Amino acid sequence: MWIYEKKLQYPVRVSKCDPRMAKYLIEQYGGADGELSAALRYLNQRYTIPDKVIGLLTDIGTEEFAHLEMIATMVYKLTKDATVEQLEAAGLGPHYSNHDRALFYNNAVGVPWTATYIQAKGDPIADLYEDIAAEEKARATYQWLIDQTDDVDLQDSLKFLREREIVHSLRFREAVELLKAEQETKKVF
Amino acid sequence: MWIYEKKLQYPVRVSKCDPRMAKYLIEQYGGADGELSAALRYLNQRYTIPDKVIGLLTDIGTEEFAHLEMIATMVYKLTKDATVEQLEAAGLGPHYSNHDRALFYNNAVGVPWTATYIQAKGDPIADLYEDIAAEEKARATYQWLIDQTDDVDLQDSLKFLREREIVHSLRFREAVELLKAEQETKKVF
Amino acid sequence: MWIYEKKLQYPVRVSKCDPRMAKYLIEQYGGADGELSAALRYLNQRYTIPDKVIGLLTDIGTEEFAHLEMIATMVYKLTKDATVEQLEAAGLGPHYSNHDRALFYNNAVGVPWTATYIQAKGDPIADLYEDIAAEEKARATYQWLIDQTDDVDLQDSLKFLREREIVHSLRFREAVELLKAEQETKKVF
Amino acid sequence: MWIYEKKLQYPVRVSKCDPRMAKYLIEQYGGADGELSAALRYLNQRYTIPDKVIGLLTDIGTEEFAHLEMIATMVYKLTKDATVEQLEAAGLGPHYSNHDRALFYNNAVGVPWTATYIQAKGDPIADLYEDIAAEEKARATYQWLIDQTDDVDLQDSLKFLREREIVHSLRFREAVELLKAEQETKKVF
Amino acid sequence: MWIYEKKLQYPVRVSKCDPRMAKYLIEQYGGADGELSAALRYLNQRYTIPDKVIGLLTDIGTEEFAHLEMIATMVYKLTKDATVEQLEAAGLGPHYSNHDRALFYNNAVGVPWTATYIQAKGDPIADLYEDIAAEEKARATYQWLIDQTDDVDLQDSLKFLREREIVHSLRFREAVELLKAEQETKKVF
Amino acid sequence: MWIYEKKLQYPVRVSKCDPRMAKYLIEQYGGADGELSAALRYLNQRYTIPDKVIGLLTDIGTEEFAHLEMIATMVYKLTKDATVEQLEAAGLGPHYSNHDRALFYNNAVGVPWTATYIQAKGDPIADLYEDIAAEEKARATYQWLIDQTDDVDLQDSLKFLREREIVHSLRFREAVELLKAEQETKKVF
Repeated sequence: MWIYEKKLQYPVRVSKCDPRMAKYLIEQYGGADGELSAALRYLNQRYTIPDKVIGLLTDIGTEEFAHLEMIATMVYKLTKDATVEQLEAAGLGPHYSNHDRALFYNNAVGVPWTATYIQAKGDPIADLYEDIAAEEKARATYQWLIDQTDDVDLQDSLKFLREREIVHSLRFREAVELLKAEQETKKVF
Repeated sequence: MWIYEKKLQYPVRVSKCDPRMAKYLIEQYGGADGELSAALRYLNQRYTIPDKVIGLLTDIGTEEFAHLEMIATMVYKLTKDATVEQLEAAGLGPHYSNHDRALFYNNAVGVPWTATYIQAKGDPIADLYEDIAAEEKARATYQWLIDQTDDVDLQDSLKFLREREIVHSLRFREAVELLKAEQETKKVF
Repeated sequence: MWIYEKKLQYPVRVSKCDPRMAKYLIEQYGGADGELSAALRYLNQRYTIPDKVIGLLTDIGTEEFAHLEMIATMVYKLTKDATVEQLEAAGLGPHYSNHDRALFYNNAVGVPWTATYIQAKGDPIADLYEDIAAEEKARATYQWLIDQTDDVDLQDSLKFLREREIVHSLRFREAVELLKAEQETKKVF
Repeated sequence: MWIYEKKLQYPVRVSKCDPRMAKYLIEQYGGADGELSAALRYLNQRYTIPDKVIGLLTDIGTEEFAHLEMIATMVYKLTKDATVEQLEAAGLGPHYSNHDRALFYNNAVGVPWTATYIQAKGDPIADLYEDIAAEEKARATYQWLIDQTDDVDLQDSLKFLREREIVHSLRFREAVELLKAEQETKKVF
Repeated sequence: MWIYEKKLQYPVRVSKCDPRMAKYLIEQYGGADGELSAALRYLNQRYTIPDKVIGLLTDIGTEEFAHLEMIATMVYKLTKDATVEQLEAAGLGPHYSNHDRALFYNNAVGVPWTATYIQAKGDPIADLYEDIAAEEKARATYQWLIDQTDDVDLQDSLKFLREREIVHSLRFREAVELLKAEQETKKVF
Repeated sequence: MWIYEKKLQYPVRVSKCDPRMAKYLIEQYGGADGELSAALRYLNQRYTIPDKVIGLLTDIGTEEFAHLEMIATMVYKLTKDATVEQLEAAGLGPHYSNHDRALFYNNAVGVPWTATYIQAKGDPIADLYEDIAAEEKARATYQWLIDQTDDVDLQDSLKFLREREIVHSLRFREAVELLKAEQETKKVF
């Protein structure tokens, strides 16, 4: 089970009301390679992964929920003071018709999140490569988002998140090597 | 952010290997009215709900993740010792082809979870009725699942979860009344 | 069975060609809380709801089809004289590529309608709360749409539809109380 | 708008409780080529089809709703007296977990209906071929369903519906020829 | 099996960097009536269609992959030199957030391709009408796309593709007549 | 463009009519990690991957279509002589209702293929890890399928396909190293 602590993993600041950037940023909330995909993917794999990797999946999965909360906070801050006209000018008119200023788990286009974005195969090596690929894809998305804004406060938070994905990718690669080494050992004896 | 505590909210025991029941139970993991839907729905609404309801949404949303973990544990326990033949006999042959014994966020049929199951309107009354309806629907699902098993250990956990949904439904109704009373007050002055 | 009567439930007038507003309005045609969702939800629940509520579901479900036709008429009137350039400027370029000026059951973003927006649980109380929530959410959507236009003719039709949702919500609440009272009576005897 | 008349277009009788057949029959309720697809497809195309075909689309679209109601009645009759064990033996265990004995707009597998099954192009010839293809596909589905039951009462209703699809297909072909002839005439002058 | 030949079926030239048109054109890459739908539909039907039509399906299905490659080349050429700002101005900001300048199988709105766009019934006449309708719908889409651009080089390629759809439609109609004639013959003897 | 050669990449033999196994095997036709996913993923990435990897993607993508054809042939052979009763006993009753014995791009459950299974990020390293993960997941699926059959002829074809995935995975890893080495070189100078 989880206990909620009322603070963000890393501070989130935005320099201005910017619904245009909020529209793009929602990609990391409810998009294919976003934080929801990451958190749900890792926590789900815990039941069939070898014991020594469970802790890693729990740690990273739980951290991804903290990231999801950071993204939500960014999107909220970027849009909360926007008028209907400003939302429409930013391409969020269709979002307003359906959700007002509420957040929703969709990607930047507005397509709702689907579990088909993620996978669990039961095969530990396949699952860990799924996870490495996920981190590399999330890293790329953060890069494209950083390209799309000149808000240095927002860039600071996005760069923090991008760095975390790189760290996670490395840790999943170590886990692959660990399991492969173990498989080799088993074959020898 | 959340902190993981390595224990279940309520004990989960199953009396036997029973992949047939696991197939049905997955409805509350990745189905329309399951725990994933509940957790994601409430946590997402926090940003645009009035301040005095945020805490309630955070509390219940966080608890639903604990319920999701309980369901995952049940499904895992019901299937972990099943042979391929037993999985196939239980209608889990297609699941095995894709996922081996790994869990996945799909409903009892095998349809992947989609965010279209949930909603956020920005309108507090509409959002709270969405939440009441969600709890009533989850309560019904737990009832149908209890009907589908004669495993008293499993029934015990399912009854606990059903009761929690009833409590949540009541708390959301109180929140509706609170907000309506407040709206009335505002109109008077 | 149904008999078609060649008239609208309530007059639909629009003051101008306005594809931008048509794009938003389609939310109530093929969106999550739109009239298609409403009609199909209620008519489908008729088979397992207690007898005394069937008539209510048939009446409201049939009326929602009349609303669907009103929305279709509005969207058609708002776009029929638009040039391709005007459609593109309104964000309907992708719609034109696929559908020309034909209507389609998608939301304002352009995501096709899916039955996952609606639910039927077989439990009468859960189904009626689903219906109350649906009406509250539709009411909210009509409010956001009214906010998005300054066309007073269009606003008149939208306000009519918003009021109908409020009436339906009240009638579904009465039905809940009726069924609860009946359940209490049964418990007493 | 539509007026509900409390009778079925054609009598629906079933010889026995048969949830297995209900599971297959739901294909024509919420499947790709089912009656919901048909009704929604034709009624939606009315706004951009040439005037002389609008009446045909309204007539057939309205009739398809009557067919949808017939299918619903069949499914309900085939399952209403089934025990949970009988539903599970028929492959409807996952349906029960989610919906009890309520109907839902999904296909025989259990995949929810999606508007991507249907199309509207704005081009009258393309739309009418879409409609002819729809009728031919529905005819085929009725044939497969007739193959799957030996209940002569049920077969009688299914044969009626299959014949209606054949009639509709012919009427849509006549409409294509009518429009083509008209286009030729225009080219001549 | 297939052998790749490194050339396009027909030359693809574009006059300018035009991400706006690329956004619309992607409809024929990953949209409902696009080339992916066409290729996959025909090749899949080969296993249950009468022998004398298999070759036709293989030929046209294989050609549709060549068309898919032409569309991909057009989209790539229209966007490869665009800046992030130009992509955003063309409505491709959400695409950039997720995919950078990579292509993806989605329609002009950005909705990912789904196999629910296509069908296979096992009934040869129904399958061939599905195919005729598909070609008529693709023809219409090419017409709408030609309307949306004034780039004569691009129009040249699109007109070539539109003509191919007309030819395919005729060939599928011939196949229907062939099979119907054969069915008549069988009935006579 | 592609040229069709009327032969299979590797012989496909099945020992018996076995619709049960056909149901599972369809996972590699239209499932998340199946051959359709593989072929479409690689061919789509060709436009934005560095030049020196394009040939690899074309080769493997084209080969995956040959694998798709092999799977189709297996499924067809396993079901072509099955009676309706045998199809139903194998869990293919819902498939028959919709498709008769025709193939369709769905997974073993019966969920239609969706492009959300695959990804293209524009970032070469991320795309190649996506591809490695895809091959590892396909390898796992073939293993689960081999576990589900005792037909040695079928196992022979499945083992051939499993081996090809292992080879592809290695080649994608080499491509990652190649691109990383090149990136390092660029940083040095």
